[in-house]
Amino acid sequence: MTAYDELMAFQRETEALAAVAGRLHWDQETMMPRGAAPQRGEEVAAMESVLHARRTDPRVGEWLATAVPRGEVAEAQLRHIRRDYERNVKVPARLAAEIARVTSLAHGIWADARMTEDFAAFAPTLKEIVALRREEAAALAAGGDLYDALLNDYEPGMTGAEIEDLFAALRPGLVSLRERILGATRTVPQIDFEFPEEGQLRLSAELALAFGYDMVHGRIDKAVHPFSSGSGLDVRITTRTNPRDPFNCFYSTIHEVGHAAYEQGIDRAFLLTPLGRGASMGVHESQSRIYENQLGRSRAFTAFLYNRMVATFDAFGIEDAEAFYTAVNRVAPGYIRTEADEVHYNLHILMRFDLERALIEGLLEVDDLPEAWNARFAADFGVAVDKPSHGVLQDVHWSAGLFGYFPTYTLGNVYAGCLHEALRATVPDLDAHLAEGDTAPATGWLRDTLQRFGGLRTPRETIRAATGREPGVGPLLGYLEAKFGEIYGL
Amino acid sequence: MTAYDELMAFQRETEALAAVAGRLHWDQETMMPRGAAPQRGEEVAAMESVLHARRTDPRVGEWLATAVPRGEVAEAQLRHIRRDYERNVKVPARLAAEIARVTSLAHGIWADARMTEDFAAFAPTLKEIVALRREEAAALAAGGDLYDALLNDYEPGMTGAEIEDLFAALRPGLVSLRERILGATRTVPQIDFEFPEEGQLRLSAELALAFGYDMVHGRIDKAVHPFSSGSGLDVRITTRTNPRDPFNCFYSTIHEVGHAAYEQGIDRAFLLTPLGRGASMGVHESQSRIYENQLGRSRAFTAFLYNRMVATFDAFGIEDAEAFYTAVNRVAPGYIRTEADEVHYNLHILMRFDLERALIEGLLEVDDLPEAWNARFAADFGVAVDKPSHGVLQDVHWSAGLFGYFPTYTLGNVYAGCLHEALRATVPDLDAHLAEGDTAPATGWLRDTLQRFGGLRTPRETIRAATGREPGVGPLLGYLEAKFGEIYGL
Repeated sequence: MTAYDELMAFQRETEALAAVAGRLHWDQETMMPRGAAPQRGEEVAAMESVLHARRTDPRVGEWLATAVPRGEVAEAQLRHIRRDYERNVKVPARLAAEIARVTSLAHGIWADARMTEDFAAFAPTLKEIVALRREEAAALAAGGDLYDALLNDYEPGMTGAEIEDLFAALRPGLVSLRERILGATRTVPQIDFEFPEEGQLRLSAELALAFGYDMVHGRIDKAVHPFSSGSGLDVRITTRTNPRDPFNCFYSTIHEVGHAAYEQGIDRAFLLTPLGRGASMGVHESQSRIYENQLGRSRAFTAFLYNRMVATFDAFGIEDAEAFYTAVNRVAPGYIRTEADEVHYNLHILMRFDLERALIEGLLEVDDLPEAWNARFAADFGVAVDKPSHGVLQDVHWSAGLFGYFPTYTLGNVYAGCLHEALRATVPDLDAHLAEGDTAPATGWLRDTLQRFGGLRTPRETIRAATGREPGVGPLLGYLEAKFGEIYGL
Repeated sequence: MTAYDELMAFQRETEALAAVAGRLHWDQETMMPRGAAPQRGEEVAAMESVLHARRTDPRVGEWLATAVPRGEVAEAQLRHIRRDYERNVKVPARLAAEIARVTSLAHGIWADARMTEDFAAFAPTLKEIVALRREEAAALAAGGDLYDALLNDYEPGMTGAEIEDLFAALRPGLVSLRERILGATRTVPQIDFEFPEEGQLRLSAELALAFGYDMVHGRIDKAVHPFSSGSGLDVRITTRTNPRDPFNCFYSTIHEVGHAAYEQGIDRAFLLTPLGRGASMGVHESQSRIYENQLGRSRAFTAFLYNRMVATFDAFGIEDAEAFYTAVNRVAPGYIRTEADEVHYNLHILMRFDLERALIEGLLEVDDLPEAWNARFAADFGVAVDKPSHGVLQDVHWSAGLFGYFPTYTLGNVYAGCLHEALRATVPDLDAHLAEGDTAPATGWLRDTLQRFGGLRTPRETIRAATGREPGVGPLLGYLEAKFGEIYGL
């Protein structure tokens, strides 16, 4: 065996173990008995310890030093393995295990605090997590920027400063559009109906299939916070229901199907290798976003959905497909990020980005976080946060230690804007298919131009190869202006 | 840290990883998407490879050489670790990983073959499994008996020859009782009714709670072959339903609750240590059996169950609790081991023991297995096997490589007989409680005298400590004679 072959065999086993660790996370959020949390904490820490030992194994360094890649696939595999290895050898095993243990326990504490509206019950745990991640960031950054060091795990090559610039270019257009919409005289209907859970889950599964989700290699369960989990031949999604808001269920399902379809669409030759995952969290999010928004919330697809909803729930107070389209895309300030419309969504992210960056840079204390959150929310959304579950406790991310993850959501929207522009140019009759519930021309184009390559290219190259342009905010802003300008008669 | 402390810290992490590997098995049988099997095979193999490396780590040998145990708990921990270590260093890592990989893939192949009634589709896989386990047994036995070497994993200290003797002592009494029952003039009612699945699952969950199953540290799902999985704070069970036979659901649930209650009842101080598991598979089975049979199928408890069934399903054609008691305990030859009555059950096991021992000893070929099965079944049960799913393909065990496991089922019945005799002597008014659905005097006695000690004592000592006698077949035969003699008026 060559050094490259030995390295790849070792890496494949590591990827298999990482898949097992990922499955534990899925289990924890969907199936695990509540009282199992302390034991699960030890299990997760033990897996993390095994993975850390493998990811920092000196043999990997030796193989990397002598491996000769043949062809672009092998070169890309080595690029990923080298980046991860150089990162991982900087983090002590003790710290990696401690982060895994604390964040595993934190999930239950966060969920309880959210249920009882008690931020103080979560604060000590969050402080511990912030301190641990700052310690990790310091080890990674070697004197550089702490936040950049964490961000690099989710969007390799991107910096906090670049994101700050990108978000600065996005903000004026979003703020202006939002103000014009809220000042518009045209009104958009609001659905006022109780949608039984059973029908929501059934139609949600139908939508998953319509968007190409492969149930032979996946499954759908309920969870507090919808997510997609796994890669290769076992990619699971979760959803949730709210009787008053079926779109929460439907569009979070389509969103997670976007993530899952990416994983399922990657070339099977990359199974259990570094290329068998997406190019970055931002690119991953571009798939979930284009599925959910540019496709799922299009006039054409909502016409199909309207008919399916009438068939499932009978009349629910919306007279026709056109009124339904505007209702689906109704713009209103709201507390919850995952329920936000396309115009407000990125304002949620811009806020979280600034807050978490300040936490990691040591410019904001956890005890001051609720006040900072509430002040910023009042300023950006014009509404006072009424309770922690509507504010600082709403998202699972920080309890899981995911600092640097939030901005990739808006990066995903930016990438999705670029992809959508290119898709429309390539498939001019797309709407005719979407109106029939046929997403294949779109999902097929995404699979062929982007998904199947997995991590073969850098995030920027991935978007460039699919769209023929550099990523930028123009297409997203143009899409939002055109869509909501028409809906609200601006 | 002393050598003992270092060893125990290392062992604890190994136990946590083993718990993760166990959870993969649960997932595979309950939740895993069908198409994920090949990837799961690699995941299981990777976990097995990690576990094997830890279980054969030379440091364990060094710690064992120098560790000084203080007290009986530490002595027992070392006894388990030493036995496992000395066993594991005999098996090459390659072989351990190969067994894990093949048996993981085998599950789907077995399930498909069972569904399509096609033994030939499973035979090549079973040959591979038998060959691998024989290779493992040869490595373990070092010239000794191959079957004994495998048996030792499930019932430490027991030999095939001892089991042969024990079964020989059991057989005449069983055969005689069976013949007298089948020749009896008194008839026992047979239930003929369709029981909706929803009601079965609801009542099954109620029975689990009645037998003390702790749902904060467990959960119930459906699976093809009911099983209990996990230890400590996360012990899950599965069940299955058959509309024509609700007892399949109810009694497999109570059975698995017996296993789970044992795991849940072990002293929490033993969590994630070798003592945190049961003393042996036979002792484990004694708990599931006494829950299921001596308690669950008693006249007193079936009176309670009868009322709950009437409340759940309305009238189902059985006039009163006494008729119900006899119907629950109806004796009839049947194809399926897990549906067998208490009299026939052990005849199923005696047969599997002889067949699997012959396979491992090289006296029977896989290709000849169906014929050998069918011939023995016709001889013992007086009925010809009509299809493989009623015969050689009915059990999951061999597809999982579990040779040496079957006889522990009958050992469990033998131990349960001894425990039941002692329990009745200790709690004379037990029936008054059972008739109210209150199992606490029985389950409490079992927890206090047996379950909480986990693996502290050897299997034989465990039974002796709880019952004050050596394990033997007398109490089981006496119990069966008395119970079925009365029901059938012998």
